Amino acid sequence: MKMRFMDKEFLLKTDVARELYHSYAVKMAIIDYHCHIDPKEIYEDIKFDNLSEVWLSADHYKWRVMRAAGISEEYITGNASPHDKFLKYAYVMPRLIGNPLYHWSHLELKRYFNIDEPLNEKNADKIWYKVNNKLQDYSARKFIEKSNVEALCTTDDPVDDLIWHKKIKEDETFNCKVLPIFRPDKALNIESLDFTDYIKQLGKCTGITIDSLDKLKEALIIRLDFFKAHGCCVSDHGIATIPHNAENESPDLAFKNALDNKKLTISMAESYRMELLTFLAGEYRKRDIVMQLHFGVIRNLNTSSYKMLGADSGFDAIRGYQEALGERLSTLLNRIELNSGLPKMIVYSLNPLDNAQISVVLGCFQSAEFPAKIQHGSAWWFNDTKCGMEQQLINLAETSVLPYFVGMLTDSRSFLSYTRHEYFRRILCNLIGQWVTDGEYPYDIEFLGKMVEDICYYNCKKYFDF
Amino acid sequence: MKMRFMDKEFLLKTDVARELYHSYAVKMAIIDYHCHIDPKEIYEDIKFDNLSEVWLSADHYKWRVMRAAGISEEYITGNASPHDKFLKYAYVMPRLIGNPLYHWSHLELKRYFNIDEPLNEKNADKIWYKVNNKLQDYSARKFIEKSNVEALCTTDDPVDDLIWHKKIKEDETFNCKVLPIFRPDKALNIESLDFTDYIKQLGKCTGITIDSLDKLKEALIIRLDFFKAHGCCVSDHGIATIPHNAENESPDLAFKNALDNKKLTISMAESYRMELLTFLAGEYRKRDIVMQLHFGVIRNLNTSSYKMLGADSGFDAIRGYQEALGERLSTLLNRIELNSGLPKMIVYSLNPLDNAQISVVLGCFQSAEFPAKIQHGSAWWFNDTKCGMEQQLINLAETSVLPYFVGMLTDSRSFLSYTRHEYFRRILCNLIGQWVTDGEYPYDIEFLGKMVEDICYYNCKKYFDF
Amino acid sequence: MKMRFMDKEFLLKTDVARELYHSYAVKMAIIDYHCHIDPKEIYEDIKFDNLSEVWLSADHYKWRVMRAAGISEEYITGNASPHDKFLKYAYVMPRLIGNPLYHWSHLELKRYFNIDEPLNEKNADKIWYKVNNKLQDYSARKFIEKSNVEALCTTDDPVDDLIWHKKIKEDETFNCKVLPIFRPDKALNIESLDFTDYIKQLGKCTGITIDSLDKLKEALIIRLDFFKAHGCCVSDHGIATIPHNAENESPDLAFKNALDNKKLTISMAESYRMELLTFLAGEYRKRDIVMQLHFGVIRNLNTSSYKMLGADSGFDAIRGYQEALGERLSTLLNRIELNSGLPKMIVYSLNPLDNAQISVVLGCFQSAEFPAKIQHGSAWWFNDTKCGMEQQLINLAETSVLPYFVGMLTDSRSFLSYTRHEYFRRILCNLIGQWVTDGEYPYDIEFLGKMVEDICYYNCKKYFDF
Repeated sequence: MKMRFMDKEFLLKTDVARELYHSYAVKMAIIDYHCHIDPKEIYEDIKFDNLSEVWLSADHYKWRVMRAAGISEEYITGNASPHDKFLKYAYVMPRLIGNPLYHWSHLELKRYFNIDEPLNEKNADKIWYKVNNKLQDYSARKFIEKSNVEALCTTDDPVDDLIWHKKIKEDETFNCKVLPIFRPDKALNIESLDFTDYIKQLGKCTGITIDSLDKLKEALIIRLDFFKAHGCCVSDHGIATIPHNAENESPDLAFKNALDNKKLTISMAESYRMELLTFLAGEYRKRDIVMQLHFGVIRNLNTSSYKMLGADSGFDAIRGYQEALGERLSTLLNRIELNSGLPKMIVYSLNPLDNAQISVVLGCFQSAEFPAKIQHGSAWWFNDTKCGMEQQLINLAETSVLPYFVGMLTDSRSFLSYTRHEYFRRILCNLIGQWVTDGEYPYDIEFLGKMVEDICYYNCKKYFDF
Repeated sequence: MKMRFMDKEFLLKTDVARELYHSYAVKMAIIDYHCHIDPKEIYEDIKFDNLSEVWLSADHYKWRVMRAAGISEEYITGNASPHDKFLKYAYVMPRLIGNPLYHWSHLELKRYFNIDEPLNEKNADKIWYKVNNKLQDYSARKFIEKSNVEALCTTDDPVDDLIWHKKIKEDETFNCKVLPIFRPDKALNIESLDFTDYIKQLGKCTGITIDSLDKLKEALIIRLDFFKAHGCCVSDHGIATIPHNAENESPDLAFKNALDNKKLTISMAESYRMELLTFLAGEYRKRDIVMQLHFGVIRNLNTSSYKMLGADSGFDAIRGYQEALGERLSTLLNRIELNSGLPKMIVYSLNPLDNAQISVVLGCFQSAEFPAKIQHGSAWWFNDTKCGMEQQLINLAETSVLPYFVGMLTDSRSFLSYTRHEYFRRILCNLIGQWVTDGEYPYDIEFLGKMVEDICYYNCKKYFDF
Repeated sequence: MKMRFMDKEFLLKTDVARELYHSYAVKMAIIDYHCHIDPKEIYEDIKFDNLSEVWLSADHYKWRVMRAAGISEEYITGNASPHDKFLKYAYVMPRLIGNPLYHWSHLELKRYFNIDEPLNEKNADKIWYKVNNKLQDYSARKFIEKSNVEALCTTDDPVDDLIWHKKIKEDETFNCKVLPIFRPDKALNIESLDFTDYIKQLGKCTGITIDSLDKLKEALIIRLDFFKAHGCCVSDHGIATIPHNAENESPDLAFKNALDNKKLTISMAESYRMELLTFLAGEYRKRDIVMQLHFGVIRNLNTSSYKMLGADSGFDAIRGYQEALGERLSTLLNRIELNSGLPKMIVYSLNPLDNAQISVVLGCFQSAEFPAKIQHGSAWWFNDTKCGMEQQLINLAETSVLPYFVGMLTDSRSFLSYTRHEYFRRILCNLIGQWVTDGEYPYDIEFLGKMVEDICYYNCKKYFDF
């Protein structure tokens, strides 16, 4: 059977897949437990002048493929007009065959702007005017409401005053929960040039003179409680590599040396990170805050571009094989388990190769406290392609218990990215539908429908306790 | 075409696949050349009171998924009744969608107990009584006979007296060959706390005062000859990582220091292991004993659970990327080849990522002595999923000569695991059937049927010389 | 639908795939921008006595599978007659099910000799005579012409006098361009025993006394300009691993020590390679010469066989995981970019696991100078299986912009290997056809047809500026 391009059965190859998607998945609200939206923009309910602004102005995924297609930087992050930038992206679009951006971009055009034809250089102008016209009816909040988002979590630094989260909560005209994620990366990046400045800032914000690791912990807990009081139910850690267990080093000394600009070896820094991660994990556990752990990125690896455009501009990549990844990850988890017991935890792999190894390590730390207490997170960043998501789901099913998976997140700065949940749900339903159609699982639609609803929505709601 | 759940065409998607399975594969006897069954249980022909005892009491695969599903340890390894433990597993079963346990468990219920419906919490009690009733007709030997097992190899320590193997051989009422595998891991684990005790035990058992590496070798050869006299045709080595070739270290000194509790560096330990593996390989070759090599596990990585439940309880994982795996493996093989010539050898990968690399290295050490003398073993442990097996077969075909593959093993402690051979055979026939149906290989049923029979049975018989 | 074995729809599973292949791909000429053919053989237009000579005498892929099948070396590289060697390979052929050699070998028999039946031991003699008879009509040039090869690049050392390239160019009876590839591996292999001899040879050939790194650079540039004058538009580097950025070492000192047989640490050697690669990259850029980078092989790892048969005899393998591969690769590219700007560059992975990582790193160094200026090369050596090629194409599409891919190369010593381009084109068309049939891309045959033509031919022509 030949399917029509991205019609309503998009990615759904079997009758079972279609039933699961249309009768179950599609009805579920979205809980986007990890994104990078600015809560101020939600509170102020910002509007967008044109498609470039909402679509291209902050999306380094799109920038990367434009660069690969040989488009000049002027039309990517430079001074070209929004209209000209859009025309360039429209030119690139048909060339994105096989790239997730091709599907994401078209889903966004379809769902929010009723554009049903594939974008290319020929129809670009027509679509530009049609979308810009429709854009007048939209705002930050309208995108969120249209997408049936029940709750979303933004990523915030411990020193953030969370004023916008507070204002949003107090605004009774908007029903979507907007909650902060506690992300203390700057407190862990002891080797960073900004580290001492950041510690001062944290001291100021908490009224504590942070001159020792104990004082730092005290300050972080003050902020964590503040976040918790503002509805925070999840934290996030982005680390380059999982630290070694440098038992011979003193994390306290490492911290003091960093403050005093004294000697700080790699091994000292790792002992510091290991200690602080262990400590925070225990504090998350006490407060039933989920701990997210991301690792394996190399950042800003093109110096010329970094100088010109700064961080998060599309010059990051997958870090190389980390020697002894399984050993390091299990050592960290074991240390936390012995110290305080593990909190609920989601571990993400950036390199698709790590799937099997990570998932099997996590399986050694499950507990009767909660089903799938330790989760292998959804395919992330360079992995969240159709194949990448499918691989992560298959791996999860093979090595753990798929029906307890907390599912998809956008990890996005954009108000249009909620269609990535649709993309994920279609892939999920298709995979399950194929298994049933192939006779590998019985056609128990009641169970399967419930499972799809759980992975799309209920698991998340229970796991994070929204 | 929609297939019925796990019917007789389970996993067989094409007519060619069905012909290959039903006309060839299914008729072949099983040679299970690597398992962990206790030969005493075979000799004594033990019986089982209930399904929990035969199914759940020793299976850490099942324990892991129960933990992941949030089941309390009481119902896994704890004091709950066999019936209650079974009910918990029945609850988890439908949630194992996509997990190999879902298929393995149902195949076991079908083939041995004629249970044709998918197990779940609703029909659990009905199945419990039906199976327990049928269990009265079974015993260790009856399971083996019913499974058409012609020979099986159990894993034994060199100091084992092999009394049960001897008794089984002398018992004319039982026709399945039960042979010992020579597995001298304890003699290689020079860093283990039990090492000196073990060496004493080996000394006592051979009448040799083991005070040097030469004496150790002498003692091991005495035991190897004893095993050979009891029908041993295969050895096994489980090592964490493949040792470096630490040419500057003295393996003799390493051994003496270990006996005297003196300094033992990693590099000394590796030189010891490298030397002993090289030596044993030569001795295997002299006796035409196949050498199996397993590596890449991290064991007991959850300390709390290990203290509570001990080893082999489901807290092991895939070791991280081993730097220079290809180089190390080829150095070991090259050293053996130069020293004595390689014995027949089977190398297994635990991390599915290692498939390509291992297979290509092995391809550099083939010989006219025997077709596929050096084999890349079947997908192992965390890999023996449907996808994992398919990947191993595809990789083997792409990089070597598939028709000489010695095929599947159970690696199991259970008398019900022989259905894993069925699972493997269905996957094998389906893969070949697909190639033929896609026009990638001619429909030469005579050749293909013979190849399937070879991989299921004859290759194994010839390779191990059963 | 059951397909006939390797008929005209071989590997083309959908109507779209068939249209793309038969209406577009098949018509395009071949540009084989990377091979190992001896240009002298082209100039002299050599003929072949028999199928063994043209097919088996220099193909270590075939040697490997013959060894794996237990064939004696006598029939592989030894003294057996060409006819007997062929019979042995014919015996192995049916056993190559799932191996790319099975398809390559049959495509070669079909396209050049009209053999339509699968080769096996039974019809071997009939095919032997039929092919040998047809072989009389062929010669090196006739194979090239029959294969519609417009240009091919041979791999040459900087000291090569390129006399055969010159003669071929002057010969007006032959229209295929035969151009040299500049491959200065010997100048980079500073640790090799032959290094100083090679430097002397290079000095002699350029009239320069090479007693410093600057002089070496001067000599290499003389040769590079000589190559450029003979039509060279591409260079090639085969390195074991990507060098570390050993900033503390002096590459000049490393070079001098190597010449004087003084101390040369690994880190010194790496600083030398890093410096020379950076320098050459800049020079390639100035001359618009494409830089190819291959890494990740372990060579000659079976000492006995190496002593008997020498290099390139089938005893190489995939190198192990290279720690920090992403970091090293990006450091090298960044260094070149800062120093001179990057030339056009093609990076190949030998380990299929490296695909994602390499591709994502390359995506950080694209530029408006040329679409897909930095390319992730086609699946290479042990990877160029059906699955390996498909994976590389999917990965490329997911992480970059597929329509700009420069496509396939043979990397071969044989005049029959051009059918590998057919194999690649069928796989490419099938992949795209499947996407369209599944509704993942619109049926825009004009765009898709052009894209297929580009990847098969035009991209290559523009990228290398043939």
